[in-house]
Amino acid sequence: MLDKIQVVLSHTTHPGNIGATARAMKVMGLSRLALVNPQKYPSAEATERASRATDILADAVVTEDLNTAIAESKLIVGTSARTRSLPSKLITPRKLTEIIQESPTKTPVSILFGTENSGLTNEELHLCHYHVYIPTNPDYSSLNLASAVQLICYELRLAFAEGDLLPEQPVVESEEPINRAQFDGMLEHFLTVMRETGYLMPDHEKQIDIRLNRLLNKAEVTQSEMNILRGFLRSVEYQCAKTSNIAAEKDSPSN
Amino acid sequence: MLDKIQVVLSHTTHPGNIGATARAMKVMGLSRLALVNPQKYPSAEATERASRATDILADAVVTEDLNTAIAESKLIVGTSARTRSLPSKLITPRKLTEIIQESPTKTPVSILFGTENSGLTNEELHLCHYHVYIPTNPDYSSLNLASAVQLICYELRLAFAEGDLLPEQPVVESEEPINRAQFDGMLEHFLTVMRETGYLMPDHEKQIDIRLNRLLNKAEVTQSEMNILRGFLRSVEYQCAKTSNIAAEKDSPSN
Repeated sequence: MLDKIQVVLSHTTHPGNIGATARAMKVMGLSRLALVNPQKYPSAEATERASRATDILADAVVTEDLNTAIAESKLIVGTSARTRSLPSKLITPRKLTEIIQESPTKTPVSILFGTENSGLTNEELHLCHYHVYIPTNPDYSSLNLASAVQLICYELRLAFAEGDLLPEQPVVESEEPINRAQFDGMLEHFLTVMRETGYLMPDHEKQIDIRLNRLLNKAEVTQSEMNILRGFLRSVEYQCAKTSNIAAEKDSPSN
Repeated sequence: MLDKIQVVLSHTTHPGNIGATARAMKVMGLSRLALVNPQKYPSAEATERASRATDILADAVVTEDLNTAIAESKLIVGTSARTRSLPSKLITPRKLTEIIQESPTKTPVSILFGTENSGLTNEELHLCHYHVYIPTNPDYSSLNLASAVQLICYELRLAFAEGDLLPEQPVVESEEPINRAQFDGMLEHFLTVMRETGYLMPDHEKQIDIRLNRLLNKAEVTQSEMNILRGFLRSVEYQCAKTSNIAAEKDSPSN
């Protein structure tokens, strides 16, 4: 679906914004860009701001008027910072992805972005089936052109990217979670050592047991972490044994 | 909640990115910015790129080390373009908002962004409870610092902004939808005129009725649109009447 969605920049003033738009699109996997009567294009500034997304610029369609750019589109969506007296329905970027999902035959889709300062003209607004409004701070809605493209392309990627959104994480055996039997062994080890050090008094045993169980459960202990904890507990046991040996020696008749 | 979420930029190289971050935050209603050992700050470039979000820069906390910046935070989240061997759980920006919603006592929240080229250091990564990964094109994941801040702040705004996401649209009476009785009147008017013009044949009447009903339903006709359609239908009726008058005159014995 991402290859059926065209970003249309109409009468863009700053070529840097065209380059930044290409980058914003490519990073989210969109590739179809149309430029309607850009003020200065091609431009070294556009190429520079595109970073390595210059293929998007090279493939961009440049037209004299908007109607040519959107002639094949079946769903036409405006983006607007204006909120009053729009001729069609105002929706969020997320709602746009739902509409496209619900009507997969309405492709190609064109998403129109007007000139930087004043946005889409009334004439352009009337071509749109919907208007996407990006929710912003009502006291400061200064979202630049490429940022608006970035946010909408991000929503489109979340909705239409194939495969997992998150990259696969390597499975390391020592980082696998422990099972309940291992958990019980570890918990019992804690309680035993706490008894040996004198921390655990019979009156509080149940309460400490419950809290320790909860703490270790929350920590989602892995194999390697269990090994560290039990290694530490063994070292404490060793110290306890040494202490009691010394005490025993002190008490022995030979001293 | 947005005022309990701090954006932390660690060892930022380009001051322009600090300014663009302030703008990206403010446009989504975030205000708490911490700068850990920025390479060049304060800077005229930061102020320029901040546009009118210079209040965010003026209030920014600048610290020598990350631990000071996040000392009061209870939930610490890294952002990472790295995907392998992260010490904590990888989540999407949207999942982050769910985690914050589910644990509202884990505030303040700090969201860490590392230096431009290499991201967070291993030491910094280990301070994080989670890592946010912004889904990007695996072949081109070149998302700049301020764009990453923009996308995460956008998700936070969607989740935590108070009030409606979309601005209220003015209700214009003529743009209110028509009710079913008005719809039926209009549909009947169409069918009557179609009979008069000779378009509607008795064989097809039912089929045309159904299709016209569907078309007009999809159009979600408003009061003013109904007035246009019925006005047009009346003008057709007038033409039909004229035609039949002329025909009647021709047929009359006086000719």
